[in-house]
Amino acid sequence: MATPEASRIPGGLGQPAGRVYNFNGGPANLPLPVLEAAAAELLNWRGTGMSIMENSHRDKKVVAMALEAEDDLKSLLKLGDEWKVLFMQGGASMQFAMIPMNFAADGAACDYVNTGMWSDKAYKEARIVGADAAFAATSEPDDFTYIPDTFAFRLNSRYVYITSNNTVRGTQWRTFPRKPPAPLVADMSSDFLSRPLDLSDFALIHAGAQKNVGPAGLTIVLIRKDFAQNGRKGLPHMLDYRTFIESDSMYNTPPVFAIYIAGLVFKWIRHTVGGLDRMALRNEAKAKRLYDAIDGSGGFYRGTARPESRSLMNVTYRLPTPELEKKFQEEAKGRGLCALNGHRSVGGIRASIYNAMPDDGVDTLIEFMEYFKAANG
Amino acid sequence: MATPEASRIPGGLGQPAGRVYNFNGGPANLPLPVLEAAAAELLNWRGTGMSIMENSHRDKKVVAMALEAEDDLKSLLKLGDEWKVLFMQGGASMQFAMIPMNFAADGAACDYVNTGMWSDKAYKEARIVGADAAFAATSEPDDFTYIPDTFAFRLNSRYVYITSNNTVRGTQWRTFPRKPPAPLVADMSSDFLSRPLDLSDFALIHAGAQKNVGPAGLTIVLIRKDFAQNGRKGLPHMLDYRTFIESDSMYNTPPVFAIYIAGLVFKWIRHTVGGLDRMALRNEAKAKRLYDAIDGSGGFYRGTARPESRSLMNVTYRLPTPELEKKFQEEAKGRGLCALNGHRSVGGIRASIYNAMPDDGVDTLIEFMEYFKAANG
Repeated sequence: MATPEASRIPGGLGQPAGRVYNFNGGPANLPLPVLEAAAAELLNWRGTGMSIMENSHRDKKVVAMALEAEDDLKSLLKLGDEWKVLFMQGGASMQFAMIPMNFAADGAACDYVNTGMWSDKAYKEARIVGADAAFAATSEPDDFTYIPDTFAFRLNSRYVYITSNNTVRGTQWRTFPRKPPAPLVADMSSDFLSRPLDLSDFALIHAGAQKNVGPAGLTIVLIRKDFAQNGRKGLPHMLDYRTFIESDSMYNTPPVFAIYIAGLVFKWIRHTVGGLDRMALRNEAKAKRLYDAIDGSGGFYRGTARPESRSLMNVTYRLPTPELEKKFQEEAKGRGLCALNGHRSVGGIRASIYNAMPDDGVDTLIEFMEYFKAANG
Repeated sequence: MATPEASRIPGGLGQPAGRVYNFNGGPANLPLPVLEAAAAELLNWRGTGMSIMENSHRDKKVVAMALEAEDDLKSLLKLGDEWKVLFMQGGASMQFAMIPMNFAADGAACDYVNTGMWSDKAYKEARIVGADAAFAATSEPDDFTYIPDTFAFRLNSRYVYITSNNTVRGTQWRTFPRKPPAPLVADMSSDFLSRPLDLSDFALIHAGAQKNVGPAGLTIVLIRKDFAQNGRKGLPHMLDYRTFIESDSMYNTPPVFAIYIAGLVFKWIRHTVGGLDRMALRNEAKAKRLYDAIDGSGGFYRGTARPESRSLMNVTYRLPTPELEKKFQEEAKGRGLCALNGHRSVGGIRASIYNAMPDDGVDTLIEFMEYFKAANG
């Protein structure tokens, strides 16, 4: 695969194949070499004479491909054999229900940290299925502008649930609670694989693919096998994590194409980027340049999250007026800087700069921000 | 899009791009023009400068694409507004649980017709979630070689569940029970869109995409709105059909790429094939030629299903010995006729000839069968 620098053309327009810089919150941009590889073999995958979409999931080559993706992911995250990688469906919203169904629907306590819309949704599903869910902390009174650092954890809690990165508000956990009374369960949908992780306090991590992993329709779940074994019995097969563990995610037909793309992305991170340490350095550098541009704008651009809680994935900010924000988005789009609108629930500007956003995309955005401020400030 | 006849090259080998004839039971082959269209715009969909995988599901063009797919499907099936098309995830196995969870988990009666592995799995999930599920008929004593035609339906049943086509045993419902005491619910995963349907007795139909619709990871559900409204309350959002109805299947991020491919397939059936009547004629003609070859082989090839219950999608047959079956599969593969193995639970030969299998694929297989019989008979 070519390196991502193959797409390096200053100015924003004129990228290969008429492509734009895509700041979507998710589904988000994918590494260009991954898309090129997929397009090249879409009619004939690995000499099988069939598309990867047409190969049986029971075929040896497909099984090997899925296991290879799992191995690459375990290698990236340095996961030991106490962990299992699952390829699931239904997105984070299905996990919001499945987690309490498996671990707390007998009325057990489980603690949630409320950092915005997604953790609130997760909490509500836990209540629906009969868990004794409670907020151990919430930043709601301050409009979710920060990540809490003090928690009222209960000693009888089955798990502590957090959302590691909040796409709507642009906040991110930089460090996780140390030695919580119960294992951590995290929705890492929007910063999965953006940095190395110390998973010693975790029992389950879920991540919708459509930010840093692959196409929508695939949910990555990392689960400690001992945690899964202690789950409730008597659930439908597709709602029991053990079904997926025992079948290597192939109890029924998995989303093969999405797993295939995810596998290419894992290899891109491993071999082109050079692993999660280097991925994190890239992400930190990209985010720093963009936040510096915001902070150095003399107040024309204003970040919405508190500096110590700022997300490296979703950079959220405001302009002096909603009218200027609209103008900003429209002019940016004309220069190939697309999807800079904030989440529909909060408005403003959101530049999502996930793993696959090239340096040039960020630099072109910064250039445009300077130009726009000069013209409208 | 080119017509499927673009792939017409006698002999089996030498199809475009080194493609083979793919008799997989599922995931199965897709129409070549659909794959070609997807490959051509994989890096830049409809001039957006992004892959369809990178576009937000909230983007107007993506919402319009999904609604267009829904409209095309409703038009193909002549569905009235009392029906809703849902784009879901999790495959038939998730539906096995969701259907009784929504409609019978309060201990209500629901009747199942047992025609093989898939209906048996559906029945078992209903028992797991607490429904009073019972078999109204079963062909198990005769090794599932036929579709029953007499049923012990209960008058208090909430629904009658059937599997319209049985991929493992090669049987298919040619006509459905008339005026059952409860609405029909059907798993049509493996013959969906292969023929026109009179849905007046039905309330819900589900179909995994990976046979006649698109890539694995998408489940099509057709549901009568009034049936859904009477479902049980208090379920997790992702397990309640109303969530999907009210959000046009976009409560959370749907499997956009799979919906996009399905939309291309719907257009291929509508405009290239000419609708479901013509699709059915093609399928009947293909299956007839293959069954005639089996029946005319003087007993060398033996069909496993009773003639009146034979599937037009999965043609299952045996050779005189398992050794010959293995040799048959291997030699066929060498000629570009792939994946002719029977389901791993029953063995034998299975030629899956779904919508996208071109006439030439079937004719090439028949030629090979004649050659193989002459050489080994």
